Amino acid sequence: ARTGIPEVIYTPGKTKEQVRQIAERMYKSGIDILATRASEEVFMHVREVVPEVTFNKMARTIVFHHHSNREETKDYIAIVAAGTSDLPVAEEAAETARFLGNKVERIYDVGVAGIHRLFSKIEGIREARVIIVVAGMEGALPSVVGGLVNKPVIAVPTSVGYGANLGGITALLAMLNSCAAGISVVNIDNGFGAACQASLINQLK
Amino acid sequence: ARTGIPEVIYTPGKTKEQVRQIAERMYKSGIDILATRASEEVFMHVREVVPEVTFNKMARTIVFHHHSNREETKDYIAIVAAGTSDLPVAEEAAETARFLGNKVERIYDVGVAGIHRLFSKIEGIREARVIIVVAGMEGALPSVVGGLVNKPVIAVPTSVGYGANLGGITALLAMLNSCAAGISVVNIDNGFGAACQASLINQLK
Amino acid sequence: ARTGIPEVIYTPGKTKEQVRQIAERMYKSGIDILATRASEEVFMHVREVVPEVTFNKMARTIVFHHHSNREETKDYIAIVAAGTSDLPVAEEAAETARFLGNKVERIYDVGVAGIHRLFSKIEGIREARVIIVVAGMEGALPSVVGGLVNKPVIAVPTSVGYGANLGGITALLAMLNSCAAGISVVNIDNGFGAACQASLINQLK
Amino acid sequence: ARTGIPEVIYTPGKTKEQVRQIAERMYKSGIDILATRASEEVFMHVREVVPEVTFNKMARTIVFHHHSNREETKDYIAIVAAGTSDLPVAEEAAETARFLGNKVERIYDVGVAGIHRLFSKIEGIREARVIIVVAGMEGALPSVVGGLVNKPVIAVPTSVGYGANLGGITALLAMLNSCAAGISVVNIDNGFGAACQASLINQLK
Amino acid sequence: ARTGIPEVIYTPGKTKEQVRQIAERMYKSGIDILATRASEEVFMHVREVVPEVTFNKMARTIVFHHHSNREETKDYIAIVAAGTSDLPVAEEAAETARFLGNKVERIYDVGVAGIHRLFSKIEGIREARVIIVVAGMEGALPSVVGGLVNKPVIAVPTSVGYGANLGGITALLAMLNSCAAGISVVNIDNGFGAACQASLINQLK
Amino acid sequence: ARTGIPEVIYTPGKTKEQVRQIAERMYKSGIDILATRASEEVFMHVREVVPEVTFNKMARTIVFHHHSNREETKDYIAIVAAGTSDLPVAEEAAETARFLGNKVERIYDVGVAGIHRLFSKIEGIREARVIIVVAGMEGALPSVVGGLVNKPVIAVPTSVGYGANLGGITALLAMLNSCAAGISVVNIDNGFGAACQASLINQLK
Amino acid sequence: ARTGIPEVIYTPGKTKEQVRQIAERMYKSGIDILATRASEEVFMHVREVVPEVTFNKMARTIVFHHHSNREETKDYIAIVAAGTSDLPVAEEAAETARFLGNKVERIYDVGVAGIHRLFSKIEGIREARVIIVVAGMEGALPSVVGGLVNKPVIAVPTSVGYGANLGGITALLAMLNSCAAGISVVNIDNGFGAACQASLINQLK
Amino acid sequence: ARTGIPEVIYTPGKTKEQVRQIAERMYKSGIDILATRASEEVFMHVREVVPEVTFNKMARTIVFHHHSNREETKDYIAIVAAGTSDLPVAEEAAETARFLGNKVERIYDVGVAGIHRLFSKIEGIREARVIIVVAGMEGALPSVVGGLVNKPVIAVPTSVGYGANLGGITALLAMLNSCAAGISVVNIDNGFGAACQASLINQLK
Ligand SMILES: Nc1ncnc2c1ncn2[C@@H]1O[C@H](COP(=O)(O)O)[C@@H](O)[C@H]1O
Ligand SMILES: Nc1ncnc2c1ncn2[C@@H]1O[C@H](COP(=O)(O)O)[C@@H](O)[C@H]1O
Ligand SMILES: Nc1ncnc2c1ncn2[C@@H]1O[C@H](COP(=O)(O)O)[C@@H](O)[C@H]1O
Ligand SMILES: Nc1ncnc2c1ncn2[C@@H]1O[C@H](COP(=O)(O)O)[C@@H](O)[C@H]1O
Ligand SMILES: [Mg+2]
Ligand SMILES: [Mg+2]
Ligand SMILES: [Mg+2]
Ligand SMILES: [Mg+2]
Ligand SMILES: [Mg+2]
Ligand SMILES: [Mg+2]
Ligand SMILES: [Mg+2]
Ligand SMILES: [Mg+2]
Repeated sequence: ARTGIPEVIYTPGKTKEQVRQIAERMYKSGIDILATRASEEVFMHVREVVPEVTFNKMARTIVFHHHSNREETKDYIAIVAAGTSDLPVAEEAAETARFLGNKVERIYDVGVAGIHRLFSKIEGIREARVIIVVAGMEGALPSVVGGLVNKPVIAVPTSVGYGANLGGITALLAMLNSCAAGISVVNIDNGFGAACQASLINQLK
Repeated sequence: ARTGIPEVIYTPGKTKEQVRQIAERMYKSGIDILATRASEEVFMHVREVVPEVTFNKMARTIVFHHHSNREETKDYIAIVAAGTSDLPVAEEAAETARFLGNKVERIYDVGVAGIHRLFSKIEGIREARVIIVVAGMEGALPSVVGGLVNKPVIAVPTSVGYGANLGGITALLAMLNSCAAGISVVNIDNGFGAACQASLINQLK
Repeated sequence: ARTGIPEVIYTPGKTKEQVRQIAERMYKSGIDILATRASEEVFMHVREVVPEVTFNKMARTIVFHHHSNREETKDYIAIVAAGTSDLPVAEEAAETARFLGNKVERIYDVGVAGIHRLFSKIEGIREARVIIVVAGMEGALPSVVGGLVNKPVIAVPTSVGYGANLGGITALLAMLNSCAAGISVVNIDNGFGAACQASLINQLK
Repeated sequence: ARTGIPEVIYTPGKTKEQVRQIAERMYKSGIDILATRASEEVFMHVREVVPEVTFNKMARTIVFHHHSNREETKDYIAIVAAGTSDLPVAEEAAETARFLGNKVERIYDVGVAGIHRLFSKIEGIREARVIIVVAGMEGALPSVVGGLVNKPVIAVPTSVGYGANLGGITALLAMLNSCAAGISVVNIDNGFGAACQASLINQLK
Repeated sequence: ARTGIPEVIYTPGKTKEQVRQIAERMYKSGIDILATRASEEVFMHVREVVPEVTFNKMARTIVFHHHSNREETKDYIAIVAAGTSDLPVAEEAAETARFLGNKVERIYDVGVAGIHRLFSKIEGIREARVIIVVAGMEGALPSVVGGLVNKPVIAVPTSVGYGANLGGITALLAMLNSCAAGISVVNIDNGFGAACQASLINQLK
Repeated sequence: ARTGIPEVIYTPGKTKEQVRQIAERMYKSGIDILATRASEEVFMHVREVVPEVTFNKMARTIVFHHHSNREETKDYIAIVAAGTSDLPVAEEAAETARFLGNKVERIYDVGVAGIHRLFSKIEGIREARVIIVVAGMEGALPSVVGGLVNKPVIAVPTSVGYGANLGGITALLAMLNSCAAGISVVNIDNGFGAACQASLINQLK
Repeated sequence: ARTGIPEVIYTPGKTKEQVRQIAERMYKSGIDILATRASEEVFMHVREVVPEVTFNKMARTIVFHHHSNREETKDYIAIVAAGTSDLPVAEEAAETARFLGNKVERIYDVGVAGIHRLFSKIEGIREARVIIVVAGMEGALPSVVGGLVNKPVIAVPTSVGYGANLGGITALLAMLNSCAAGISVVNIDNGFGAACQASLINQLK
Repeated sequence: ARTGIPEVIYTPGKTKEQVRQIAERMYKSGIDILATRASEEVFMHVREVVPEVTFNKMARTIVFHHHSNREETKDYIAIVAAGTSDLPVAEEAAETARFLGNKVERIYDVGVAGIHRLFSKIEGIREARVIIVVAGMEGALPSVVGGLVNKPVIAVPTSVGYGANLGGITALLAMLNSCAAGISVVNIDNGFGAACQASLINQLK
C-alpha cells in the first residue's frame, strides 16, 4: 500500500451493523480483515457474513485472512509487558503485527518491580529486530529495556492505574522522558499504532 | 555499544570546565565526541583541549571524530522540517544522525500551510529508509508526511510557538494523536533522541 | 434579530417534557424551530405537538419551518470533514447553517493522512464564501485547508479520539496554533457555534 | 495571493541581521513589508536598508508600503479593547488589518466592569462589518459585545493578568465557552491572526 | 454555633439509610434539618421518620424546621443567575440561605449575552446586602454585576457547559480573574458554600 | 463610588513615567492615591510630583492621602498569615484595607504546622468583623481559622513554594475545597482584591 | 519476602472467576490472602473455595489467614482520618496494616475544621510508631498532625470532593507542599500503599 | 523538639542580611545551624558572624555545629541517585540527614538505563535502615530499587529534564504510581523533606 499499512476497522463509534457491512465488503473484495477494539457482540455480527473470522477476546480483535498459508517475516517483533492489566494492549499490538505479516514473540510478566524476571528473558528480547514495550502506572519498563538492548524500542503507555496516573498520561509522560536513548512513544493504549510502526521497521529491506 | 548508542555529552547543567574535562578524557581515550545544546562559549573551551573539534551553531553541537574517513550508511535518514524556527532541533537530529554513522538528507521549508512545497520534494522523502519529521505550532506535518510514505516516521515536536502552544505540549499531543499509521513520537525539542532511534533503525541488517 | 441569530433549543439538561413545551410555544408563535443534541426520544415527544417536524439522526437535530419555500443564500458555506466519527459535529453545523438560511456544501472524507482525496475536491472548497473545517484527533485539517484557500476558515475541534487527545483538547490546541493565517476556532464539538458565525459572514452584504 | 494573506515577518527567534536581510529582499522585490513583535532595535536595523519604514511602538510593528496612496476598504473592522495592558495586542491587530488594506476603527477603554463606557460607543461597533474584541483576565468582553451586535466577532485572549490567569489560558477558555453565538477565537495575544481573518471577511465581495 | 453555620447533611456518598438515620437523630434532638444534593428517593426515605419534611426538586434540598414562624433577616441576599441549567446551583444557594435565616431574592434569567435583561433588574440587585452570582460557561456574569454594585459579590461557577469548559474549571478561573473589585469565589457548583458566607455577612451586626 | 472601590494604580505593565503621570493627575484632582506592586524606583519617580507620598517596601505599595486625619472604621479587618514569605501579600491587603478607610489588625506568624501559635492569638481573630487569611504552600490555614470563628473568611493563596505548588495553584485549589463553611477565595497573591471585598463587608451598615 | 510485602490481589480489572482462582491457589499453597477493592459479589465467589474468608465492607477487603493466632507488633500504626467519606481508604490502610502483622489504632472523625476533636485524641496519635493520615478535599490534616508529633507521617489523599478537587489531585498537591517536615505522600486513595510503607517502618528492628 | 525536626533556614525569598541575622541569633543561642538553597554569596555573609560555618557548594547548604564530636546513628540512610544533574538534590538530602544526626551512605551514578551499575551496589542499599531515591526525567529508579529491597523507600523527584518533563511533574507522577510497594514521595527537588522523614524513621527506637 501507499502507506505500508492496509485499511483496518476501528470499531468504537461504529454500530455493529456498520462494522458487519464494512467487513462484508472487504471479504467480497478479497481484502483481509482486521477490526480492533471489538466486542464479542460485534464479532458475532461479523461472523454471520464472514464465517471463518476469528476473535481474540483479550486483544479485542477480529481477524480474517483469505489465504491461510501467508508468509511471515524471519525476524520477529518482541512484545514486552508486565502486569495482566496491560495485556489487552499488548495483545492488540501482537494481533496487529501478525496481521501485517510479522513473526511475533510475546514476553509477558516482566515488570520493573521484579526485575529478575526481566533478566531471565532478556535474550529473547535482544534477538528481536524491533521491540514494543507496553506498560502502565509509572511507565518505567521501556527505560530499563532500552538500556539493555541495541534495537529500536517503541513504548506504549497504558491507561492502567488510578488517581495520579491520570488515565495513562503519567506513563506517557514518563516514557517521553526516558533516560535511555533509542525509544519513541505512541498514544495511550495504542497497541495498534505501535505494531504499525514496528511492522514498517521489521520489514525494511 | 551495549545499547547501540555511545556516550554523548548533554551540556545543560554542566559548567564549561566540566564539559571541557569530559571532552578531554574522551579525546585521550580515543572516543569520538558529540556534545549537544552547546553554546559557542563552551565550544571555545573544548577547542583548547581538542583543537580539531567543530561547532554547528544552528544545531548547537560540538563534534570530533578521531578518524576523518569514517564509513557512512548507504541508506539515508531524511530530516523534514518546516519553519526556520524549527531548524535548531532539525539540525541537532542531523548532526547526531551523522555522528552515529548515518547518511542524512535535509528536506527543509516544507510546512503544511504551503503543501505544494512538500509535494515538490516528496520523492526524496519516500526514498529514505527512515524519516524524522520536526514541527512546532500545531504539529501537523508528521500526519501529512506519514500519509504519503511507507517508511517509519519519527515525529519531533518543537517548543516553537506561543500562547496555547504551551511550550510544545500542543505539538506533542497532536503528533501522538496522528491519524496516519506508522508514526511514533519523542520528547519536545529532542532531535537527539529521534536521531538515536532513527540510527538504530537505519542500521538494522 | 438583535444578534443575527434566532432562539435555538439546546436540549441537554432539559427534560423531554420541557423541550416539547418550548417547541409547542414556538410553533404556536410562528417561530421556526431548531433543537440541537436531541435524541430520537425527544424528537418523538416534539412530534406529538409539531407534526411536520423532522429529525436528522446523525446531526441530532430537530427542525421545523413554518414556510417550506424559504429563500437560500446564493453563496454557500462549505463544511469539510474527514473521518466518519466527526460527522455528527459536521452535520450539526450543516443543519444549523441551513436553518439560518444558508446554502451548504458538504465535503466529507478528506483527511490529512490521505491528502489526495482533499485535492480532488479542493475546487468546491475554494468556491465557498466561508469554510467550516471539522476535525478530531490531531486537528491538522484546518491548517492544510487554510493554506489552500483565500476564504475565512472556522475550525471545529471534535472530541473524537482517545488517550492523549484529552476529550478534544488536543485538536483544539492544535487549531489555535495553526501556522495558516485566516483561521479561527470554536469550542470542542460546537458545530452549532461555527455555523452561527459562518452564517453571519455568509450573509454580510 | 493564494491564501489571501501576503508574507509577513514574525521577528521573534530571528536575529536583527536576519530581519534586515528579509526586509531588504522584500523592499528590492517591490513587496510591501510588515514585521510583527519587533523591538525598536530591530526597527533601527531595518531602517538602514528601508529608509521610509515606520514603527508603531505600542503595536511593535514595522511597516513599509511602496505606494503611499493605497486604497482602503469602505467598510471597516472595529477593534474593541478594555485595559491599557491589552493595547499592544489590539494595536498589532489594527496595524495588520490596515496593512492588509482595511479601514480600521479603534474602540478602546470599554471593559465589562464599567459597562456604561461600552454602551456609549456601541453604535461604532455595530456599524463595523466585522469586529475584533481583545481582552485579558476573565475574557468576558466578547460575550457582552457578541450579545449586542449581529456581526461576526473574532475574540483575541491576551496574556494580561497573573496567578490563575495562567498566561492567558483563562481568557482563552472563557472565550471558547461564550454564551453569545457568532464568536470565534484565535490564539493568545494573536492580534495578527485575528486581523488576517477579519480582513478576509471584510473583503468578501 | 462556634462557626456560625449549624450541622448540615451532605448526601452524596451516604446511603439512604444513613441519611434517614442522621435526619431522625436531628429531628429527635430538636435540631433543624438541611440535606443537600438529595435525590427524591432519599427524600422519601427521610419522610418516613420526619413527616413534615419538604423537598425542593430543583435545589435537590430536604428541609425541616421545628418552628414554622422563624424570624428572617430584614436585609436580603440577592441570588443572580442566567441560564436554566444554572438554576439547581442557584436554588441550592437560595434554600441554604433561607435555612440559615436570611431573606432571599431570586433574580434569574439575566445572562451577559442579553444584557438588557440584567439592566431591567439591577435595582433589586443593588439593594441587597450581599449578592451571590451563579454562572457557568464563560463565567462572565460576576464581573458585569460587580461593576454595577457596591456590595460584596460571591461568585459561584457551575459545571454547566461542555468541551473547553472543563467541568466548570473555565468559569472558576474566569471568576478568579475578574477585573471588577470586590468579588470572591467558591468551589464549582458550591451554592451551599456561597450561601454560608453570604449568611455570615448578611447577619453581621 | 459606584462600585464602592475608588480607582487604584496597578503598576505592572506601566512605565515609571506613566505611573508618575497618573499619580500627578490624581494628586492635582484631589484624589487619594494607592499604587500596588510598585518598586522603590517607581516610588522615587512619584515622589518627585507628590512629595508627601509614602512607600511600604514589603507591601510594595505607594500611598498618599490629601487629609491626614481620615476617619477609620470601628470594627477591624484581621489579616492572618503564617510564613515570612507570605507577608508581601498580607501587607498588600493591609495597606489596601487601610487606604479604603478600615481599621486593620495584623496577626502574623501563625502557621498550621505550629498550631499553638494560632491558638494564642485566636481571640484577636474572633473579634474582627471580617478575616483575610493569607497562605502559600498547602493553603491549609483558612480551613483551620474558618473552623474556629463565626465571621466571613476571605482566603488569599500565595505563589510561595516550589515544585508541585505550581506557582500558587495548589494553595488556590486547596482553599476552594476547604471543609470549613464560610470561606471564599480570591486570585493567587491578590491581597488587593481580598481587601476590597473585606472593606465592602466591613463597611456594611 | 524479598520486598517485605507478600503477594496481594488487586481486584479491579479481574473477573470474579479470576479472583476466585487466584485465591484458591493461594489457599491451597498455604499462603495468606488479602484482596483489595473487592465487591461483595467477588467475596461471595471467593467464599465458595475459601470458606473461612472474611469481608470488610467499608474497606472493600477480603482477608484470610491460615493461622488465627498470628503475632502482632507491640508498637502500633495510627490511622487518622476526618470525614465519613474518607473511611473506605482509611479502612483499606487499616486492614492492610493488620494483614501485614501490625497492631493498628483507628483515630477517626478528627478534621481540621473542628480541631478540638483532634486535640482530644492527640496522645493516641503521638504514641504510635508511625502515622497514616487520610484526607480528601483540601488535604490539610497531615500538616496539622505533622506539626504536633515527632513520628513519620504518611499522607494519603482521597478522591473525596467535587469540582476543583479534581478527583483528589488537589489534596495530593496540598500534601506534597505541606509546611510540616517529616511527611511523605502516596497515590490518591492508596490506603494499601501507605500501609505497606508504614508496616516496613513499624517492623524495623 | 516537639516535631523531631529543629528549625532550619530556607534561604530563598530572604535577603542575605536576613539570613545572616537569623544565623547570628541561632549561633548566639547555642542552636546548630542548617541553611538550605544557599548561594556562595549568602555563605560569605553568614561567615562574617559564624566563622567556623561550612558550605557544601553542590548541596547549596550552610552548616554549623556547636559541638564537633556529635554522635551519629549506627544505622545509616542510603541516598541513591543516577545522573550528575540530580546530585544537588541528593546532596541536600545527605547534608540534612547528617545535620539531623544520621550516618549517611551516598550511592550515586546508578540509573535505570544502565542497570548493571545499580546491581553492583545493591548490597549497600539493602543494608540501609531507610533509603532515599532521587531521580529526574522519567522517575523510574524508585520502582526498581523498591523491588529489590525490604526497607522503606522515600522517593524524591527532581526538576531535571526538559519539554514533557514539566519541571519535574512527570517524575513526581511516575513515582506516585510506582508498581513497587513500600514507596512514598515528597515534593519535587525536596531533598530536605525526604531527609527529615528518613531521619525520623532511622531514629525510631
Ligand atoms: N539533546 C539531548 N537531549 C536529550 N538527551 C540527550 C541529549 N544529548 C545527550 N543526551 C543524553 O544524555 C546523556 C548524558 O547525560 P548526562 O550523564 O546527564 O550528561 C547522553 O548519553 C545521552 O543519552
Ligand atoms: N504576530 C504574529 N503572530 C502569529 N503569527 C504571525 C505573526 N506575525 C507573522 N506571523 C505569521 O508568521 C509567518 C512568518 O513565519 P516565519 O516563516 O517563521 O517567519 C507569516 O507569514 C505570518 O503568517
Ligand atoms: N495588586 C492588584 N491586584 C489586582 N488588581 C489590582 C491590583 N492593584 C490594582 N488593581 C486593579 O487594577 C485597576 C487598574 O487597572 P489598570 O487600568 O490596568 O491600571 C484598579 O482600579 C484596581 O481595580
Ligand atoms: N530545602 C527546603 N525545602 C523545603 N522546605 C525547607 C527547606 N529548607 C528548610 N525548609 C523548611 O522551611 C522552614 C523555614 O521556613 P521559613 O520560616 O520560611 O524560613 C524550615 O523550618 C523547614 O521546615
Ligand atoms: Mg537501547
Ligand atoms: Mg506512512
Ligand atoms: Mg487561507
Ligand atoms: Mg452577536
Ligand atoms: Mg462592585
Ligand atoms: Mg467559620
Ligand atoms: Mg512532625
Ligand atoms: Mg521494597
